[in-house]
Amino acid sequence: MASETTKNKQLSAYGEARSTVSATPLSAEELRKTDAYFRASLYLCLGMLYLRENPLLKEPLKVEHLKARLLGHWGSDAGQSFTWIHMNRLIKKYNLNVLFVSGPGHGAPGIISQSYLEGVYSEVYPDKSEDETGMQKFFKQFSFPGGIGSHATPETPGSLHEGGELGYAISHAFGTVFDHPTLITLTMVGDGEAETGPLATSWHSNKFLNPVTDGAVLPVLHLNGYKINNPTLLARIAHEELEMLLRGYGWTPYFVEGSDLPSMHQAMAATLEHCVLEIQKIQKTARDTGTPSRARWPMIVLRSPKGWTAPREIDGKHLEGFWRAHQIPITDVRTNPEHLKVLESWMKSYQPDKLFGSDGKLIQELKDLAPTGNSRMSANLVSNGGLLRRPLDIPDFRKYALKDLEPGVSIRGAMANMAVFLRDIVARNDTKFRLFGPDETESNKLAKVYEAGQKVWLAESFPEDADGGNLAPAGRVMEMLSEHTVEGWLEGYLLSGRHGLLNSYEPFIHIIDSMVNQHCKWIEKCAEVEWRAKVASLNILLTATVWRQDHNGFTHQDPGFLDVVANKSPAVVRIYLPPDGNTLLSVMDHCLRSVNYVNVVVADKQEHIQFLNMDDAIAHCAKGAGIWDWACNDQGVEPDVVMAACGDVPTHEALAATALLREYLPEMKVRFVNVVDLFKLISPSHHPHGLSNAQWKGLFTSDKPIIFSFHSYPWLVHRLTYKRPNQEDMHVHGYKEKGNIDTPFELAVRNQTDRFSLAMDAIDRVERLGNSAAWVREKFRDMQLHAVNQAYDEGLDPEYIRNWTWQYPRKA
Amino acid sequence: MASETTKNKQLSAYGEARSTVSATPLSAEELRKTDAYFRASLYLCLGMLYLRENPLLKEPLKVEHLKARLLGHWGSDAGQSFTWIHMNRLIKKYNLNVLFVSGPGHGAPGIISQSYLEGVYSEVYPDKSEDETGMQKFFKQFSFPGGIGSHATPETPGSLHEGGELGYAISHAFGTVFDHPTLITLTMVGDGEAETGPLATSWHSNKFLNPVTDGAVLPVLHLNGYKINNPTLLARIAHEELEMLLRGYGWTPYFVEGSDLPSMHQAMAATLEHCVLEIQKIQKTARDTGTPSRARWPMIVLRSPKGWTAPREIDGKHLEGFWRAHQIPITDVRTNPEHLKVLESWMKSYQPDKLFGSDGKLIQELKDLAPTGNSRMSANLVSNGGLLRRPLDIPDFRKYALKDLEPGVSIRGAMANMAVFLRDIVARNDTKFRLFGPDETESNKLAKVYEAGQKVWLAESFPEDADGGNLAPAGRVMEMLSEHTVEGWLEGYLLSGRHGLLNSYEPFIHIIDSMVNQHCKWIEKCAEVEWRAKVASLNILLTATVWRQDHNGFTHQDPGFLDVVANKSPAVVRIYLPPDGNTLLSVMDHCLRSVNYVNVVVADKQEHIQFLNMDDAIAHCAKGAGIWDWACNDQGVEPDVVMAACGDVPTHEALAATALLREYLPEMKVRFVNVVDLFKLISPSHHPHGLSNAQWKGLFTSDKPIIFSFHSYPWLVHRLTYKRPNQEDMHVHGYKEKGNIDTPFELAVRNQTDRFSLAMDAIDRVERLGNSAAWVREKFRDMQLHAVNQAYDEGLDPEYIRNWTWQYPRKA
Repeated sequence: MASETTKNKQLSAYGEARSTVSATPLSAEELRKTDAYFRASLYLCLGMLYLRENPLLKEPLKVEHLKARLLGHWGSDAGQSFTWIHMNRLIKKYNLNVLFVSGPGHGAPGIISQSYLEGVYSEVYPDKSEDETGMQKFFKQFSFPGGIGSHATPETPGSLHEGGELGYAISHAFGTVFDHPTLITLTMVGDGEAETGPLATSWHSNKFLNPVTDGAVLPVLHLNGYKINNPTLLARIAHEELEMLLRGYGWTPYFVEGSDLPSMHQAMAATLEHCVLEIQKIQKTARDTGTPSRARWPMIVLRSPKGWTAPREIDGKHLEGFWRAHQIPITDVRTNPEHLKVLESWMKSYQPDKLFGSDGKLIQELKDLAPTGNSRMSANLVSNGGLLRRPLDIPDFRKYALKDLEPGVSIRGAMANMAVFLRDIVARNDTKFRLFGPDETESNKLAKVYEAGQKVWLAESFPEDADGGNLAPAGRVMEMLSEHTVEGWLEGYLLSGRHGLLNSYEPFIHIIDSMVNQHCKWIEKCAEVEWRAKVASLNILLTATVWRQDHNGFTHQDPGFLDVVANKSPAVVRIYLPPDGNTLLSVMDHCLRSVNYVNVVVADKQEHIQFLNMDDAIAHCAKGAGIWDWACNDQGVEPDVVMAACGDVPTHEALAATALLREYLPEMKVRFVNVVDLFKLISPSHHPHGLSNAQWKGLFTSDKPIIFSFHSYPWLVHRLTYKRPNQEDMHVHGYKEKGNIDTPFELAVRNQTDRFSLAMDAIDRVERLGNSAAWVREKFRDMQLHAVNQAYDEGLDPEYIRNWTWQYPRKA
Repeated sequence: MASETTKNKQLSAYGEARSTVSATPLSAEELRKTDAYFRASLYLCLGMLYLRENPLLKEPLKVEHLKARLLGHWGSDAGQSFTWIHMNRLIKKYNLNVLFVSGPGHGAPGIISQSYLEGVYSEVYPDKSEDETGMQKFFKQFSFPGGIGSHATPETPGSLHEGGELGYAISHAFGTVFDHPTLITLTMVGDGEAETGPLATSWHSNKFLNPVTDGAVLPVLHLNGYKINNPTLLARIAHEELEMLLRGYGWTPYFVEGSDLPSMHQAMAATLEHCVLEIQKIQKTARDTGTPSRARWPMIVLRSPKGWTAPREIDGKHLEGFWRAHQIPITDVRTNPEHLKVLESWMKSYQPDKLFGSDGKLIQELKDLAPTGNSRMSANLVSNGGLLRRPLDIPDFRKYALKDLEPGVSIRGAMANMAVFLRDIVARNDTKFRLFGPDETESNKLAKVYEAGQKVWLAESFPEDADGGNLAPAGRVMEMLSEHTVEGWLEGYLLSGRHGLLNSYEPFIHIIDSMVNQHCKWIEKCAEVEWRAKVASLNILLTATVWRQDHNGFTHQDPGFLDVVANKSPAVVRIYLPPDGNTLLSVMDHCLRSVNYVNVVVADKQEHIQFLNMDDAIAHCAKGAGIWDWACNDQGVEPDVVMAACGDVPTHEALAATALLREYLPEMKVRFVNVVDLFKLISPSHHPHGLSNAQWKGLFTSDKPIIFSFHSYPWLVHRLTYKRPNQEDMHVHGYKEKGNIDTPFELAVRNQTDRFSLAMDAIDRVERLGNSAAWVREKFRDMQLHAVNQAYDEGLDPEYIRNWTWQYPRKA
């Protein structure tokens, strides 16, 4: 049937099954039932796409039974249903714990139909009951206003993360199985998705899987053949080329290819079973010996026609096995009576009357094919990971305080200190917390964590790795030079009920803008789904920040991730910029305890001047924004100007500016405000953290100029403070996309965020100052130029800029 | 030497060369000279990292000769120099046209040293002359304030795109060779970079290369072994696994592995030559027959020690062949006299006195090894592609106007119409314009372009492809389901002197946020480099926009790319939101003619009501923002309120709001303003397009409330209009991250961007209106609820929402 329609027989999705494993494990009776179950799911898929009435087609199909607007995707439904159903048999036979991750875009009907057949859908949504009335509602809600989407959105029982944006199926799947030794995550990978960069590199996740303590991922690469309007690459390369590619990625691929249903059922049943047994064998060997080593885990390549089981052609145009089967397979059924008939006979070809009783319920002999209880993939607790989440065991962060500080004088490393806290969290939570990062953990001064958990590494090791390599098959730190993969792992780890932290250089976090966007959306929607339990927050620690990327230059300067995050739902996003070491500890403690948020923490990794002892830090973080009395000289009087800062380096420079002003212009009264929690700035009607206007005035006054020294692009502060009292007299200094190869001070001058620029701006805003102010302003300009010139000569900022602790007022 | 230090001898980077090709093409004399040239480049690399004085080490090395702050990277310098030098021989022997793309992060010394040795650096920067004085300046400027960076920044002759953010070497390289049949782009791929998603999928670019009309990419995967602090994956998998991976990607890999210099020189010389001849053979076969087909192009795997030629150990700690060689190889030379001596003897081991004359100039017999003129890779014109750029041949866009429009009534598809214009541009520019997109071109209504150029496809083809597949080995449209790859191709295509356009769904453009950021930075810096010629703008057309993603739901709704772009340099970024078909044509014509910009155009792909005939459209676009008289009723009086809109759907809703107000509250005077060019909103001190405040008042008044209907997140308008007159009385409606499975109208209501919400807000802002206004407000609320409820019942917006052309005023 196939050979004449394809140039390359080997690449045909048609004909009798061709498979690596050739057993035929299903009895005739099992085969009959399995195929019936498959047909039941396909019938439901078409019902979701087309019907709003007449769900069992008891009446002849008429236009008024159809939805007014036809939406949804047919292309990958059959392949996903097929795979799911064959795993059901093995779950029952071997009492497996299996999660299904649905990678292909918009394949939800394949998944949702399974949930309905297994009864989970009706348990969760009782109005979508297992009868004709329920089925009608079940059909109508699909891709219907107020209903559910055409990819596996949070409303879908058993779904862990949707197929909205493609590319993360494998990395999410690995995230679910780390530290879940009994779990097998069956992961459908679309051949469209497989072209994305994130998916292409995520195959390498197998070098980070420990067969003793982790579960297994069983990928099914679905060679569906077509994307929206194009063939897929992996379906159009030579068979041996694909096999080499997957073996090169470190997997052992098993092929199941064809369209003939009886032989395909046998082939898939045999192959899936072979893979499950292979997984169990690998795990048993490793666990019996207690010696984890890298395995060439099995995977499946399923080549079947896109839109499998649809008519092959309609009016001489290809449908099944072609890209036209991607979305609604027959689009004009409302206006073309012939095509309406085609649809009806196609739907009836699945024999719904023999699959569902007259009451609309799946007949018992088919019901019996599915597992029961939480063994049903659509009811696996891992997919609602919040239910499995146990709180982190977190030591008292106050014990890790930077002590014996002389505020404004002591220079310490906030990040290196916080690493000790992290180390002890790792040690206390050795099966439910991991640290993730793209090869930057040590550079980010977090190497202390390796004392409690090394970097997971199951690729080859060399003797020299002992020389500070910190690599081990069993570890707690996950590093690969792919922000996509480590973020995907972390998302999967969190969504399946555990905790974690991603650390990254600030400039390159934009690489995963879209992933974080999608995670925010997932979390927000989950909060609206009653049965979804809360999961641990996604914590992102950004360091190697813009103000210390002077030497790496312009490409390494981008603090704009905050703008991306600030666009997401205020119910989900939190942004913190702790000014020093003890505030960093307090913020991290808070974030690690929180649930259902995306927390972004920005803190530089270098050594910096410290300001707050632990008690003050806790009080300051609790407020989120506050006046630092010891840096003000407006006691008892109205200030002339408010100097505000948000971020560690901006705080240093703003404090230095106040010190300069106090020394040279003591008659000028300056109030100093520090902001830790960025959303304190916005109106409480736009974010729950927002200060009331009364609180705002208490900090920023209602009519005094505000010089605001900000970590990121300045306009973010303007948009957050829109309509705040006196907002038009707020002068925000931040990164203005000005950089080259600089010193830290010169970079600040370039963007007018240095102490002198801030102090001069403050002078410019206070009218009552007279000639002395003009003189001081000139003086500051001279000092600024002098410092820059020295930096140009020496390649270093001058001593009095680098060590300028003399400038600070000392706290009594 | 190697076997005892590595567990797996096959994976060792040490010992005599092991290579696929075993010839020894270099004579003893050639070998001696080649090695000397190599040593000269390595000496220069170390000089850049360490020295500010005493460049030729004529005096004993002292601390004061060192830079105060040691910066830069040593790790990949040797491997890159090595590869470059061996290609020099072949350029001369075969008169090749070769460009070098430097993928590994921070490997600039390896590249810059070549440029200096070839004399190009001194030609371009005469003060960095080929003598001792010039060499001293050349060393000092490296990673020094005011100097150049440690990756191949725009200041580097011969560089096409820097190694700041990793992952794009292969896709950029392919972009340079499309339609450049004589070019070979030798592309160094770091094994760190190779772990990124974008790089991992970009290997598949070989399925899009036409051997007849395109040049060739010759990748050299550099198994340097280590990243910042970790081994690399590809250096730690079995040899045969790596080979399968690369063959699976469709390449023919040739290995060159080891550390022994004489044998490595022979192996690299032989292997590179073999690959070049192989490329020429493939091309000749295809060109002689005129039949393009997919080739298994050659590539090289170069396994050499990280930091090659450095001391293997210092104080018992590994340096060469370990991650410690990544950055400055010996860090404490300023404080440790022993280590200063180690550095000195290491540098002297390259024998600078025998490589450079006493005047500091490379000796002639080595000079003679390099090609001359523009054959030098550091002088290849392709790397300064603006020099090769020829203007596009663009037909008069006015000929493609949507004609016979009844403004406010006619419904047409702006995108489908613009596709005809694009088609003719493709037809007229068949070697210098390509259209790029991730499998969405047809979905985006641009399929008309296939009439002039099909989709490039050299993977397997099937007979059914003839059924509307539009695939061909020679085509002009580039589609792969990887935003990273298509963006990378386009960047390479533009930077090498050609023109192009990327079309994408709006929600998923965030996938390439970081790439576009980096391109903006590259373009901005290039503009500061005197010898860089301007390149065609990067044009990004966003469609399938948020307001028509109602049915796909929340995951498909994200218009926030504009926030990312707006953070970049105002010298580079431009954002246009044409409200209809004729404005879209005018905007596209402008963007395609422009240079050195990143233009973002947002326009929906569905059919919408049209407003402007071509003359009006041209006038409107020329202004960028203007009053639409026919939609105003404030003639001769002060308006009560300004209704403004930016974006196509927002314009529809805002116009409908004005129509509603005119019908129900004729006494209310409304001015209608439309904004096409987003940066008109910002102060001219922040963007060259910004309106003066006088112009602003002419449109928006100085004291009237403004209801602003915006395409994207509303706060972007607040930040752009900060400090504009009456900014505090501006009420921006936009996407507020509220979405579900909706109808278009319901989605708008959810975000308060629908006509009724806008009209009600306008009423709320005008105090002088009395009771009648309150009644109308209630009426609008009822109408809004009624429409939403009907949508819920029917699954469709009601007729009077979908076809609401009755509401518009008609132009006389």
